[in-house]
Amino acid sequence: MKKYTMSPMTLIALALLVALSACGGSESNQPSEQGVQQAPQKVYKWKMVTTWPKNFPGLGMAAENFATLAERMSGGRLQVKVYGAGQLVPALETFDAVSQGTAEMGHSASYYWKGKTRTSALFTTVPFGLNAQEMNGWLHYGGGMALWKELYEPFNLVPLAAGNTGVQMAGWFNREINTLADLEGLKMRIPGIGGEVVSRVGVEAVNIPGGELYTSMQTGVIDATEWVGPYNDLAFGFHQVAKYYYYPGWHEPGPTLELIVNKQAFESLPDDLQAIIEGAARAINQDMLDDYTARNNAALDELVNTHGVELRQLPDDVLIELNRITQEVLEEIAAEDAGFKKVYESQKAFREQAIKYHKISEQAYYRARELKASD
Amino acid sequence: MKKYTMSPMTLIALALLVALSACGGSESNQPSEQGVQQAPQKVYKWKMVTTWPKNFPGLGMAAENFATLAERMSGGRLQVKVYGAGQLVPALETFDAVSQGTAEMGHSASYYWKGKTRTSALFTTVPFGLNAQEMNGWLHYGGGMALWKELYEPFNLVPLAAGNTGVQMAGWFNREINTLADLEGLKMRIPGIGGEVVSRVGVEAVNIPGGELYTSMQTGVIDATEWVGPYNDLAFGFHQVAKYYYYPGWHEPGPTLELIVNKQAFESLPDDLQAIIEGAARAINQDMLDDYTARNNAALDELVNTHGVELRQLPDDVLIELNRITQEVLEEIAAEDAGFKKVYESQKAFREQAIKYHKISEQAYYRARELKASD
Repeated sequence: MKKYTMSPMTLIALALLVALSACGGSESNQPSEQGVQQAPQKVYKWKMVTTWPKNFPGLGMAAENFATLAERMSGGRLQVKVYGAGQLVPALETFDAVSQGTAEMGHSASYYWKGKTRTSALFTTVPFGLNAQEMNGWLHYGGGMALWKELYEPFNLVPLAAGNTGVQMAGWFNREINTLADLEGLKMRIPGIGGEVVSRVGVEAVNIPGGELYTSMQTGVIDATEWVGPYNDLAFGFHQVAKYYYYPGWHEPGPTLELIVNKQAFESLPDDLQAIIEGAARAINQDMLDDYTARNNAALDELVNTHGVELRQLPDDVLIELNRITQEVLEEIAAEDAGFKKVYESQKAFREQAIKYHKISEQAYYRARELKASD
Repeated sequence: MKKYTMSPMTLIALALLVALSACGGSESNQPSEQGVQQAPQKVYKWKMVTTWPKNFPGLGMAAENFATLAERMSGGRLQVKVYGAGQLVPALETFDAVSQGTAEMGHSASYYWKGKTRTSALFTTVPFGLNAQEMNGWLHYGGGMALWKELYEPFNLVPLAAGNTGVQMAGWFNREINTLADLEGLKMRIPGIGGEVVSRVGVEAVNIPGGELYTSMQTGVIDATEWVGPYNDLAFGFHQVAKYYYYPGWHEPGPTLELIVNKQAFESLPDDLQAIIEGAARAINQDMLDDYTARNNAALDELVNTHGVELRQLPDDVLIELNRITQEVLEEIAAEDAGFKKVYESQKAFREQAIKYHKISEQAYYRARELKASD
């Protein structure tokens, strides 16, 4: 030791320098900002419960993709372990589990919680309402997100839009639907406001988690079901238990999936990790729709051409009547429930604008693209 | 100093402990992961050049929103200063400036660079091609992004999708368009493949940055222009220099904006900041479309009802012929250019699938929503 002539204080100073440069990054060529030096380095290990089977195409993968992106963006400081339905809590206990802090996050659909508040249905999808593009416009630039946060605040939850399936299919039936009367007496899985609408024409509407639908159809617990669209429905094998596949999904034109975060857990995070959760949710909100958009057609081809499913269009008369009943149901709930009315009015005003503009843009374009010379 | 009985080595150890806990975060209640301790803390101060006026609604704000989100998600470690067109380099030098490293990033539209490679046009939009939802499906789950990265690699650029306007308007004219012959002799601002298509019916097609369009129309440098849609076109005041506003935007059904990153700059970033750039780009890719979706209709109302603009629909015959010429142009370029052909074939296959599926989903839904009882 004798050859070292540095004083103890010099040694301390050197040790400090080495320690600080190790944690500060040797690449730094600029003075660090205050906010950077103070960034907390705590590692958050969170649980996410979901209403989907683990790794289920589209829905379940969105939860996984969120976790992967958030972990990468946070340099490993936010690690989210995703649980499939039933692995930690049953599918339809996701809301309560996150509300109570059993898990910090959940991935699900708000309309499953209409037993908590009927208003929740408006943040997933409304029959004859907004499609995916319009829902995203309303949520992020039409006041929707603020209303959703307000609704979930008493439940101790922070909601984020985190996925969209696009227009769904009307569902699987073993009976042809030629008139409204053909719906009468069916026991059908159809959640949200769509369920309330069909119950007015004699359907017994129930909600059952996705993972239990195949067995429920097979054993006759239900006679008909809607789920999502070809990409997901093929994965569940519904073509083995139903003959007719109806479109379009009048009841779910652009369902938004939700990421719910326990409020205390969210608020315990530093600002950068809060931003990462918000940013990753926005990213998967689009990413899930991209996935469906790319894969639905091939799945439909397989259902129709390999499995012999009969693809049918709901008759116009049936759609017109379901639309009429939908508006009646919405107005009735709004008249009974001031909280529902507030959100409904906001969404209704946005819908009127969107319908007008899309008539000369998206809708006019779909028409223009397929025009053919008549001669 | 005498009352301190600690040895120099104890002092050093204590100093190290204090230093490391200060940088490691005092909240840590778990062993830090290796990746976390090693996260570099360098602050990156980057420049982003754009082809839009600073803070321009939609397009320009997407660039700002990207910078804000990336800075928050990185805890201030990635700071991007956004320059409007002409502030650092002229609008149409964005590509070269980022390629050469004058700026680390750019926000623009790939079809402006068809002078560098004609294939670039396919990553913005193609006449009668994919709409916003379909472009995102193709880019992120249909192989599009891999092809785009391959195309930009020799230019030293990493591309990311970073915004979409939705279906655009066909544009502003002072002449009624009743037949194809009415287009003849027009000098019109219309970039990308749309420009090549109209040049076959006698239009002199030019590209001019958005910020110069009003003056170009006013002084007669051009007779007609397309730009984006009501939200942006109102901001530029085109209603003061043109009478007719045509829809639908057959030539730009779902233009993707690009975020380009200098390759060396991107590769110099630690993985978490690369992920933050990718995540923030995905977030604004959707966010911009949400903004347009929410605001276009009110802007159109103002154009028509306050400013007396005449809203017109392009005749079916004109659209059919433009579609025919488009397919001819695309096939011709593909026959001449193997690089173009590779991307074109991928997009064309995706388009066929998307058209088929959207006929029973999005398109069928738009129709179902507006069905009315005939009696």
